[in-house]
Amino acid sequence: MEFEEKTVQRTEIYQGPIFKVVQDQVELPEGKGQAQRDLIFHNGAVAVIALTPENKLILVKQYRKAIEATSYEIPAGKLEVGENADPHAAALRELEEETGYTGQLELVYDFYSAIGFCNEKIKLYKASQLTKVENPRPQDEDETLQLFEVSLEEAHQLLQNGDICDAKTIMALQYWEMQENQG
Amino acid sequence: MEFEEKTVQRTEIYQGPIFKVVQDQVELPEGKGQAQRDLIFHNGAVAVIALTPENKLILVKQYRKAIEATSYEIPAGKLEVGENADPHAAALRELEEETGYTGQLELVYDFYSAIGFCNEKIKLYKASQLTKVENPRPQDEDETLQLFEVSLEEAHQLLQNGDICDAKTIMALQYWEMQENQG
Repeated sequence: MEFEEKTVQRTEIYQGPIFKVVQDQVELPEGKGQAQRDLIFHNGAVAVIALTPENKLILVKQYRKAIEATSYEIPAGKLEVGENADPHAAALRELEEETGYTGQLELVYDFYSAIGFCNEKIKLYKASQLTKVENPRPQDEDETLQLFEVSLEEAHQLLQNGDICDAKTIMALQYWEMQENQG
Repeated sequence: MEFEEKTVQRTEIYQGPIFKVVQDQVELPEGKGQAQRDLIFHNGAVAVIALTPENKLILVKQYRKAIEATSYEIPAGKLEVGENADPHAAALRELEEETGYTGQLELVYDFYSAIGFCNEKIKLYKASQLTKVENPRPQDEDETLQLFEVSLEEAHQLLQNGDICDAKTIMALQYWEMQENQG
């Protein structure tokens, strides 16, 4: 069975600071003709499941313009250009900037967030042995963040309320719950 | 604490068949000045965790142009315009078109796939009591799909290999595993 969709023509629509938009005309496999594929190219991101020594999950409340609402999420951040080579360092930086903590990181999953039209890949780490950084790097100037440390039960409540509503944070909750159930 | 980022000006960059791109100039809270927010507006999607009577998960192998590779995913599809009112029907349609099955649906999660820049919301259903449809609706003309029914162990292998690599399918696996562990 053939799957590949060969690019016949690529038109660049927009190049912004966070993502690029292109429109591809593709040749479908098995002689099915042509189709248009609108695509978003993104440099990737990191996210961190950070559990405190008290077994609380660190969440960041912030405003998300795309949905015109606040949400509670695990700490995360975009990879800077050129940083793809060291996502581990990027994850430690985001953890420190957003929460003031540092720790030991372990890669849990590496996934595409919206594979149907976007190549954003998120590396999801688990941080353990968290310790407070004395003079943590400051938060990004254009971010307004509020920190929470929640129990598994409180996290489930936030999920029920819709305050937790994004894929990476729900994945983190599922992962945490599985770890808890395994004792 | 103030969070809202008020739109000062919105510029529409692109309106395509799948998503719209806009650039917002926003007023940051707490007198922090202005910032630019590049956003993707998407009509939303549905996805289905479909377990056969033999307790196998139905996966669809397909080419994803955004990553120039095939991937194994749970059945899913975009909401058509106007279909937001009935995502349940859309999920049944996608399940039938992609797999030839129908069943009983139950909403598991409702989440934003890439909340940092995109408002795509995915409704993730679990389908049970699957039965084959006699004359199922045909697959979309521009899609080339191959179906698989896999055990939990096989699914983990696909995840290890990187053949399963997208958020909604990993969420489905974690959900399935938790259900199994609960007996």
